[in-house]
Amino acid sequence: MPTIFSRIIAGEIPSVRIYEDSVCIVILDIAPMAKGHCLVIPRECWPTVAECPAEAFAHLMEVVRKVDARLRAVLGADATNIMINNGPAAGQEVPHLHIHVIPRMLDDGLRMKIVKQTYGPGEMQQFGQRLAM
Amino acid sequence: MPTIFSRIIAGEIPSVRIYEDSVCIVILDIAPMAKGHCLVIPRECWPTVAECPAEAFAHLMEVVRKVDARLRAVLGADATNIMINNGPAAGQEVPHLHIHVIPRMLDDGLRMKIVKQTYGPGEMQQFGQRLAM
Repeated sequence: MPTIFSRIIAGEIPSVRIYEDSVCIVILDIAPMAKGHCLVIPRECWPTVAECPAEAFAHLMEVVRKVDARLRAVLGADATNIMINNGPAAGQEVPHLHIHVIPRMLDDGLRMKIVKQTYGPGEMQQFGQRLAM
Repeated sequence: MPTIFSRIIAGEIPSVRIYEDSVCIVILDIAPMAKGHCLVIPRECWPTVAECPAEAFAHLMEVVRKVDARLRAVLGADATNIMINNGPAAGQEVPHLHIHVIPRMLDDGLRMKIVKQTYGPGEMQQFGQRLAM
């Protein structure tokens, strides 16, 4: 079943597109965290980063860097948040890989409220042993 | 001036390291958003993605994909958040590029509260014209 992004890529649903090439498109998010919030979207519908071939993924991330530079140059962004919600449990709303690039200003007041967790005694080392690659 | 990450890489400050190669290390964040929260950190101190050479950046993102796979395999993560706070105005706390990989579970209750903005009439198209690449 085509996702909304596949339909946008096919031109069936309108979007404001700021870049495209043979691998991906870049559009403005219609519900932006900040105005100028961009989505880098591969033309092929890979659900998460795991399904995306390495070469395509590297390309997407190079486009992300171009979008970062563009947001700084045109909007005067002081910084950007680059985010991949990589699966539904991470807040991914469309099951088609996409990368958020959000322009940030020093005093924009945009806060991502985050509650930090605390490891118990020795617990961090245990996690480290389990996760060692 | 060396950042805390340069000192961790040099072994002057302890860390729980789960991976390393010639380009980067992966450590556990000591103030995790979820237990198992990893940081992929290049050995060289590039402040943001803009200063990082393309080849190194592609490598870092491939390591991010390995960490994503590892968090799913070992911790049973259902998803991950992959995030770059790309500059101080975006919440970057250490001026040394690093990529967050945060394991997520379906019912972990972790919410990033986000206030969405709204474009005025015609404003989104104007942004699109200005940002076109």
